[in-house]
Amino acid sequence: MTKLVKMNIKMFLDELASNSPAPGGGSVAALSGALGAALSSMVCNLTKGKQGYEKVQDEIKELFQQSEELRKQLTELIDKDTEAFNKVMEAIKMPKETVEQKEHRQHAMQNAFKHAADVPLETARKCIQILDCTRIIAEKGNKNSISDAAVSALMAQTGLQAAYENVRINLCSIKDTEYVHQVTTELDELLRNAMEKSAEILGIVEKAL
Amino acid sequence: MTKLVKMNIKMFLDELASNSPAPGGGSVAALSGALGAALSSMVCNLTKGKQGYEKVQDEIKELFQQSEELRKQLTELIDKDTEAFNKVMEAIKMPKETVEQKEHRQHAMQNAFKHAADVPLETARKCIQILDCTRIIAEKGNKNSISDAAVSALMAQTGLQAAYENVRINLCSIKDTEYVHQVTTELDELLRNAMEKSAEILGIVEKAL
Repeated sequence: MTKLVKMNIKMFLDELASNSPAPGGGSVAALSGALGAALSSMVCNLTKGKQGYEKVQDEIKELFQQSEELRKQLTELIDKDTEAFNKVMEAIKMPKETVEQKEHRQHAMQNAFKHAADVPLETARKCIQILDCTRIIAEKGNKNSISDAAVSALMAQTGLQAAYENVRINLCSIKDTEYVHQVTTELDELLRNAMEKSAEILGIVEKAL
Repeated sequence: MTKLVKMNIKMFLDELASNSPAPGGGSVAALSGALGAALSSMVCNLTKGKQGYEKVQDEIKELFQQSEELRKQLTELIDKDTEAFNKVMEAIKMPKETVEQKEHRQHAMQNAFKHAADVPLETARKCIQILDCTRIIAEKGNKNSISDAAVSALMAQTGLQAAYENVRINLCSIKDTEYVHQVTTELDELLRNAMEKSAEILGIVEKAL
């Protein structure tokens, strides 16, 4: 299958809208995060070497490198999420005639569901890191691009919220209660933090506008 | 220039992150809305002809047509937003030597800023319509895709919030106070409605999960 990130935007949207369950919300979560990272990188680029921003050049360069690294990772997660979903589908389709086959299938399904939860969890972890970059960028970056910093924060926050929903739907099928508890705890913490950080950034933008 | 929607996702993200101010947050707002519409269409597609969903078939077909129309319009707004931004840049670069040139430039700039506010305002109007579709889809559509309905709502809400920021930054440069007042009033109402509708949809998903 063609890599999703190699599809043009119109094609990707067509593929998303189609009657195939993948790509779905998990890949969109990662894309949302990647869009947030890209906008943060843009504001850094529009701050580099600009008059009036001499004092923040070193910091902006460092933030740029961070957001570019996060953009790269989130771009990879777009395809990883759909691949993980397809593994679940493969496991579900495994033969289930004999007791042995049933056990084998159950084991494969549990592993696939865990992986399908781990991928959006990773997306969520990356999105919160973007918010940490974006907060400083909104504060210290080019004021002409302040609305882009706001959109960056919104996309990162939404990437995390969307990832949250995708982890949770997979957790519903996982029997390892310790794993479910551990992931839920981390996820709730990530969501709480993201909403706080995002609100803080939108507050900075509000003051500047 | 290549149409943005003809770029592959990786290229679009590269272009977004680059040191050119366009494309920026306004195009991302429209893309976010288009992603939301696409996910709503997908849930409709995964509900069509499915056992257990016999009673909602007609309604789902109608919602599918609505969300596909909205997806088409929002996809067009991705490029329209960047075009509108480029028109502002062109107007700013007009000659300003003579009094006549100055007046001419001011007039062109005011028109360009209004258009650059109108485009994300249109994005916001489309995003709220997606939320209206998504609410019913989350309620009546395929329960296996409930997390996709949630992500649809999140993307539409964020598309609207992102559009809001982009209208507002353009309003800062518009001198026609009546226009500014009128747009601000509509925009605030759209934002309030969007947050309410989105929270309602996430509540429906929460119950189902």
